[in-house]
Amino acid sequence: MINRLTIIGVGLIGGSLARALKSGDAVKEVVGTSRDARHLQRALDLGVIDRIEMDLGTAVSGADMIVVAVPVGAMEDVFAEIAPYLSADAVLTDVGSTKTSVVEAARVAFGELPAGFVPGHPIAGTEKSGVEASFAELFKQRRVILTPTEASSAGAVSKVRAMWEKTGAIVTETSVTHHDEVLAATSHLPHLLAFALVDTLATMDDKQEIFEYAAGGFRDFTRIASSDPLMWHDICVHNEPALLKILNRFEADLDRLREAIAKNDSDYLLQVFSRAKVARDQFCEGE
Amino acid sequence: MINRLTIIGVGLIGGSLARALKSGDAVKEVVGTSRDARHLQRALDLGVIDRIEMDLGTAVSGADMIVVAVPVGAMEDVFAEIAPYLSADAVLTDVGSTKTSVVEAARVAFGELPAGFVPGHPIAGTEKSGVEASFAELFKQRRVILTPTEASSAGAVSKVRAMWEKTGAIVTETSVTHHDEVLAATSHLPHLLAFALVDTLATMDDKQEIFEYAAGGFRDFTRIASSDPLMWHDICVHNEPALLKILNRFEADLDRLREAIAKNDSDYLLQVFSRAKVARDQFCEGE
Repeated sequence: MINRLTIIGVGLIGGSLARALKSGDAVKEVVGTSRDARHLQRALDLGVIDRIEMDLGTAVSGADMIVVAVPVGAMEDVFAEIAPYLSADAVLTDVGSTKTSVVEAARVAFGELPAGFVPGHPIAGTEKSGVEASFAELFKQRRVILTPTEASSAGAVSKVRAMWEKTGAIVTETSVTHHDEVLAATSHLPHLLAFALVDTLATMDDKQEIFEYAAGGFRDFTRIASSDPLMWHDICVHNEPALLKILNRFEADLDRLREAIAKNDSDYLLQVFSRAKVARDQFCEGE
Repeated sequence: MINRLTIIGVGLIGGSLARALKSGDAVKEVVGTSRDARHLQRALDLGVIDRIEMDLGTAVSGADMIVVAVPVGAMEDVFAEIAPYLSADAVLTDVGSTKTSVVEAARVAFGELPAGFVPGHPIAGTEKSGVEASFAELFKQRRVILTPTEASSAGAVSKVRAMWEKTGAIVTETSVTHHDEVLAATSHLPHLLAFALVDTLATMDDKQEIFEYAAGGFRDFTRIASSDPLMWHDICVHNEPALLKILNRFEADLDRLREAIAKNDSDYLLQVFSRAKVARDQFCEGE
């Protein structure tokens, strides 16, 4: 049981976490803090948090679990603000989509990495954002990846793990670097491509008509382009090395496909399309 | 009312058209023909067609409406086979995703474009294929684009239009060239990108783990990579000029995004992501 959970940034992820823990009777009190008082008021009105605390230092004092759920570009400032107020036995985690940058931010802000700090990332979310979109079941059967640092204590890791398991998530651990590479491939690159494609079409002369003729496949393909631009800006900037690596690989593969189309190389096209279909059907079975 | 409708290629599209017209009492008899006798037998067992006719010439003789629903790469052969058997007043249409190539195939096969030939394209479908996946409601509220040729008679156009309207579709007309450019942007390029991305990931060393960490956004983004590889091979090859044109434009835009990430150009990234989100939200409202 968590006595006092402080959530910094009560949006889709922070709000859904609070809802899940409350509905599972896994927390006594949820304190919400954020730079945006209106968001907090909505979270309070919705019953997602029990109490608003605008001052970050006061918000984290006396909390036994602190979850930082702000865009990754805001992590360092938040860490620096709360550093003087953390209890010695407080457990601190985050939900950022990039882990190298978050760990580096913590190192800068705290001087050395706290034993109570366990970086984390729930692989869940929708293209929606904000506390209004939050719901208790968001993490059910979804993965949460923890990337403990060399300083993370075993006790802190097990408390963060226990919290996420209460939401119905499947918790796994991996290294910071490996997390960032895998997520660059499965999440960051797809978002970049979706934003890029929609923008390419949106800047064409006959964009009105183009979108009118877009069918079901286009809606699904571009759904993630409705995601929060600031959050994805932060992710791209903060996972630059891993993202550029997989982007370069993808662009090289796309170039080969372009050549194959230009040269009428049916064998190559059929090989790629068939391999992709088999992989996609295999890994997304049962949807 | 159509007296005898002959569908050449009874898959998702041909099968759904037959189901829709039957359920709307808009056709007396549906004859199915295909190179694959097993597909036809399934279509007959499912009640999608009333009669199997393996011989193409016999299948189209006496039909007042003929719908060619084969991959675009097979159109020319089909047209050549049926050419000698078409009744003078028969109406012929197709459902191919590329129109320039289909009109060219008709020109070659028929010598000159028949007055009864009205090229068409229902903007509907799923990543599934085959008659088992067909359903009567597939075209409801979806667009069907007709691209009449200079030879198409007004009577033939209005019969094809009436047929599609019976399925609940919204029928519009445009030029062959414009159709191919718009569809390259909204359909062919997205499919190419989805196939390319899944294949890039599927050929990586840790592909097993990569797909395990893929979340909801990835499933939606890659759904169209489960589409039929042969059909999409045909589309890429047969809409080469328009597809390469939009692919080049997209790659140039993606290159600019890559540079912006590498240079930490936040303004540019935020501008593109925000413009894409606005466009996507605006054009896909109400989903």
